[in-house]
Amino acid sequence: MRINRQRLEESMQALGRIGETPNGGLTRVALTDEDRRGRDLLVEWMRGAGLRVTVDRMGNIFGERRGRDALPPIMMGSHADSVPTGGKYDGQLGVLCALETIRCLNDHNAITRHPVTMAIFTNEEGARFQPAMIGSGVMAGKIPLEDAYNARDRDGLRLADALERIGYLGPEPCIPRPIRAYLELHIEQGPILEEEQLSVGVVEGIVAISWSRLSFHGVQDHAGPTPMRIRHDALVAAAEVVRGVREIPRHIGGDMVATVGRLDVSPNIPNAIPGRVSMTIDLRDPADENLDRALTRLDRIVKEAAHREGMRCELDHYWRVPRTPFDPEVVAAVEQSARSLGCGHRRILSGAGHDAQYMATIGPTGMIFVPSRAGRSHCEEEFTPMDDVEHGANTLLLTAVKLAGAMG
Amino acid sequence: MRINRQRLEESMQALGRIGETPNGGLTRVALTDEDRRGRDLLVEWMRGAGLRVTVDRMGNIFGERRGRDALPPIMMGSHADSVPTGGKYDGQLGVLCALETIRCLNDHNAITRHPVTMAIFTNEEGARFQPAMIGSGVMAGKIPLEDAYNARDRDGLRLADALERIGYLGPEPCIPRPIRAYLELHIEQGPILEEEQLSVGVVEGIVAISWSRLSFHGVQDHAGPTPMRIRHDALVAAAEVVRGVREIPRHIGGDMVATVGRLDVSPNIPNAIPGRVSMTIDLRDPADENLDRALTRLDRIVKEAAHREGMRCELDHYWRVPRTPFDPEVVAAVEQSARSLGCGHRRILSGAGHDAQYMATIGPTGMIFVPSRAGRSHCEEEFTPMDDVEHGANTLLLTAVKLAGAMG
Repeated sequence: MRINRQRLEESMQALGRIGETPNGGLTRVALTDEDRRGRDLLVEWMRGAGLRVTVDRMGNIFGERRGRDALPPIMMGSHADSVPTGGKYDGQLGVLCALETIRCLNDHNAITRHPVTMAIFTNEEGARFQPAMIGSGVMAGKIPLEDAYNARDRDGLRLADALERIGYLGPEPCIPRPIRAYLELHIEQGPILEEEQLSVGVVEGIVAISWSRLSFHGVQDHAGPTPMRIRHDALVAAAEVVRGVREIPRHIGGDMVATVGRLDVSPNIPNAIPGRVSMTIDLRDPADENLDRALTRLDRIVKEAAHREGMRCELDHYWRVPRTPFDPEVVAAVEQSARSLGCGHRRILSGAGHDAQYMATIGPTGMIFVPSRAGRSHCEEEFTPMDDVEHGANTLLLTAVKLAGAMG
Repeated sequence: MRINRQRLEESMQALGRIGETPNGGLTRVALTDEDRRGRDLLVEWMRGAGLRVTVDRMGNIFGERRGRDALPPIMMGSHADSVPTGGKYDGQLGVLCALETIRCLNDHNAITRHPVTMAIFTNEEGARFQPAMIGSGVMAGKIPLEDAYNARDRDGLRLADALERIGYLGPEPCIPRPIRAYLELHIEQGPILEEEQLSVGVVEGIVAISWSRLSFHGVQDHAGPTPMRIRHDALVAAAEVVRGVREIPRHIGGDMVATVGRLDVSPNIPNAIPGRVSMTIDLRDPADENLDRALTRLDRIVKEAAHREGMRCELDHYWRVPRTPFDPEVVAAVEQSARSLGCGHRRILSGAGHDAQYMATIGPTGMIFVPSRAGRSHCEEEFTPMDDVEHGANTLLLTAVKLAGAMG
């Protein structure tokens, strides 16, 4: 049994047109009109494939293909939202490969012991509502539903209201239910598979991740008549932290990464000394204890910058996910599928968070990576060669069939 | 002849309520509905004082009190727009002291040889439309009218359309006309008068000012799986420049000030490496040649940062105003007025740009400063004690009367 490459490619093109940017990227931010249109098309396809479609109270969408027995399902999924000016592979490739797997089972009138379900999770990116992976996080019981509902975007709109607005505030409870396994195909978003000319990454787990938010409260003043000696410039303090954060991985060593991704200046005009700067710090490492060391270092960098510029600051380490090891049986099944296809593969660790991270707390979980050209993602240049997509999708299909117990 | 302190204070309070912030500051950004309401109130007051009110094609408002002879007027003015979350003194104090001067002339049925005109200039702050002081700049022939009309705010709205929207796209040509003198009362916006416990600054001129804009074009990528070794982070390069700019005054010495006031990150989300950062650099010095040295240094800082992070950048020194010396006769008249009032005063240089800078290219110009508490401005905490306001306003009155040739 093999997936239908042409059908998959056509689905990728059709879904990729919803929210397409002039440069061929994708802006389909969670719970916008574009997200709604993307969801509508996917639901139409899922119904066309004979799936029983349900939507839960977080807007997560599920489509079940019946199994022979009343057993927990094999769930395959990912997300359909993108970052602003993102690409056409992150998230939607996993959703479409899951759909293609189901279509392929239909082509063969395959009967499986376990049901096979596809899932589309809400607001994985966290570009609009924080934290990221909020749909799967609530489902796993790690984020209270009320907290998720009260998350607000930059315009102050509540997530619950945004869900209702696009018609995806569903009736089903958003709670953990038994699964046989969760499988997610995703782009690597790093350079390793491409550098080693491999098609498939057998993901062993996800690095530990920490998000912090930081505000400096300086003194807003006129950029002209205010002598340097009396200034308390919040942006100068923030710049110290940006530099300091960049140096943290060098001090910790290994594969740590550290990023200031968001930084907002107030009042943000040419002739006022910035009175306030808020920013985020994203730290990731394969080892939880390295993250602890990095956070201690960050605390010191921030304190020193605030002291040097003479101002108050607020630092909040508001989100932390420990290293997530995936299920050995599922990882072995993915590896065996890739091997049986004869495609180049290796074991790999994910540097990005995924819905699989939360799903791993519910049941046996594994992921399949396909290469990202130049390691790039969260940008319009995202690209994976179709040969690799095909290898990845077939790895997903074979793994799902194996775990679902195909009857032939 | 002395100004009416109570009337002036009541006018300050009434105008200060239009665009008032919850913390007692002011947000009355150029050509917004608040600006329109502020202008409407001022025009009502000007008509009430018997002035002939005209509006030019840049929305600059003039109110003329007739003189005995057909001579060029004494013009007194400032601006009524504010920065976002600014204060109630910057700009509007100068406008209201000009109005109070005219009301005071009316109280005494004074006849002057020269007409006495008050002026309210459009978009002095440059918070919404760049460059700053655009209304007086066009009037002085330093900015082409078409360029000013095509200036756009962050939402892409043209200045001409914004003017029309609030009903202040007037019919009068915006061109230089002969003046006997231009006088502007303004808050110091620096700490010197307060530190020296003086009421009045006799302004000798304005420092040289340079504005630059800078963009770094890095590589937007995912903050997780992208190893530090392959990153091109535009915010890291920008942070180097923020630090470098802070150090420029130390290297140049003297009274130079250097500020990065605006910095915008794209895509500005926690989990994406910033692909693009744009920022502004504001440099000021009493001596033009120091500004040249500073700009050479800035060029090097930017080049090094771009090289270190491996990215392209664009640096544009897009606005420059040379040091503006004020007219010796006008400066002497201001000084003599302050002395005759017996209030503490000193000669001082302005670190901020003012409409007076452009007016000085049209005719003899001078300014009067009053103290800023803690040197603060462009913030909600702006404050000048009423005793100092009164001294400043009387200095303006006496200077205007002297230059206008009062008949008694």
